Amino acid sequence: MKLATVEVNGATSAARVEGDQAVLIPGFADVGEVLRSRALATAARVEGLRLHLDAIGVLPVVLQPQRILCVGMNYISHIAEMGRETPTHPTLFPKWAGSLVGAGQPITLPPESEAVDWEGELAVVIGRPTRRVTEAQAADAIAGYTIMNDISMRDWQYRTSQWLQGKTWDRSTPLGPVLATPEELPAKARLTTTVNGQVMQDDHVDDLLFGPAHLVAYVSTMMTLLPGDIIATGTPAGVGHARKPPQYLTHGDRVTVTIEGIGSLSNLALREDCDAAA
Amino acid sequence: MKLATVEVNGATSAARVEGDQAVLIPGFADVGEVLRSRALATAARVEGLRLHLDAIGVLPVVLQPQRILCVGMNYISHIAEMGRETPTHPTLFPKWAGSLVGAGQPITLPPESEAVDWEGELAVVIGRPTRRVTEAQAADAIAGYTIMNDISMRDWQYRTSQWLQGKTWDRSTPLGPVLATPEELPAKARLTTTVNGQVMQDDHVDDLLFGPAHLVAYVSTMMTLLPGDIIATGTPAGVGHARKPPQYLTHGDRVTVTIEGIGSLSNLALREDCDAAA
Repeated sequence: MKLATVEVNGATSAARVEGDQAVLIPGFADVGEVLRSRALATAARVEGLRLHLDAIGVLPVVLQPQRILCVGMNYISHIAEMGRETPTHPTLFPKWAGSLVGAGQPITLPPESEAVDWEGELAVVIGRPTRRVTEAQAADAIAGYTIMNDISMRDWQYRTSQWLQGKTWDRSTPLGPVLATPEELPAKARLTTTVNGQVMQDDHVDDLLFGPAHLVAYVSTMMTLLPGDIIATGTPAGVGHARKPPQYLTHGDRVTVTIEGIGSLSNLALREDCDAAA
Repeated sequence: MKLATVEVNGATSAARVEGDQAVLIPGFADVGEVLRSRALATAARVEGLRLHLDAIGVLPVVLQPQRILCVGMNYISHIAEMGRETPTHPTLFPKWAGSLVGAGQPITLPPESEAVDWEGELAVVIGRPTRRVTEAQAADAIAGYTIMNDISMRDWQYRTSQWLQGKTWDRSTPLGPVLATPEELPAKARLTTTVNGQVMQDDHVDDLLFGPAHLVAYVSTMMTLLPGDIIATGTPAGVGHARKPPQYLTHGDRVTVTIEGIGSLSNLALREDCDAAA
């Protein structure tokens, strides 16, 4: 099953995605609400208004995750391109909900950064309150998977030792288009990122150093994960910052991250109009 | 004016603090709701049930901040004791609301860490949506100040380059006891941290490398700060990790952070009972 959060006539709704159609799920303003209400079974069978996906807006799959945890240095290929040693523990950094945009919404290029980069990632969506679970138990905590493009302002990310300030700019980070329940994701699902059609990242999610269940178990040692929380599992080789010379996003670029079993998350990068935003 | 979030008969409420009394502010479940409703003027004059502070529980001053941003390396004295160079930009890292406890609630010592440390800090509480403000404009965004004890699991904090995993353990981080509006805070307010009565940190908040208005302006470049968001401004010298030999919190320790003009944030550190928590 695939679920999305959509916008219809100015209101948001959870929806079940069937082919190119969205079946609205009455009473749930987003997929986060479906998860908090433990209503996945309802979402699977309910009948509602049926709309063509092309006719509606697709929003971040969870509108207000309490937490967005991202993992750095988690594909052997990316660790190598960044010139780092293989880590013994997951490296964690944050984003906040204000940074999210949906599939098809623009990635905001702020005037303050000259180095906006892409990072295609498999993201875990948490389905239930989860603390101190084993890796075996962690599977029960995973409602499904989505895609995050972990957009990174490299010039800000590396101003200090802590990456936060390059990672959570307003309306910069695509999340979606759907939550795909676990059976949809092939074990060796391919992940590709293209910029204007050119393949930049091409790997398989089984190349992750720390896999989804390991990450859920690890984070749950520290904190109670909540329904709708997101763990983005890290990016493979092929980011713009590691290219020689480096390549960053510019106005009008289209970035598309595709993961087999989930779909494609495709967004235009557009310069922010500071006057309009003020 | 000083405001607190209190618990009375199992319900939470915002309250105005007058001496040793709390005046409940009807209709506002916490100080965060007062700020989101732009109701500081109402909070200043409303009359409600009057209770002795000793008789009620004091909760985190904002129950669910959307964002908690912490600043590292921001007192010259602490930069020196950690052996770092003077930074040119603020170093930012996160906590989440699940890590908060109120004044008088225990700091949870989890069995997984052997190195739980204190960090007394002045914290800014945001009063209105704020994006891309100058330092001069930033004062208008600051609803007031509170105290954070930025409890840090040092063994986890330094597992990787990113500090997050040492910083946001469930129910570890005291925030409060009150929001003090800006006129309450002396320009050279003294900050002290004691452990079991022994002074560990003793500095003045005007020794901050990046002051509150600078931090608000800096962060607002990246993201829209929201009412109730917290920016903890960093800790002065005297953390346990920098002592020789290092000193960490153990079961039954009392940590008290006092800032002139705000008050005292005093908490017992207690071992977590894993069986009871499961």
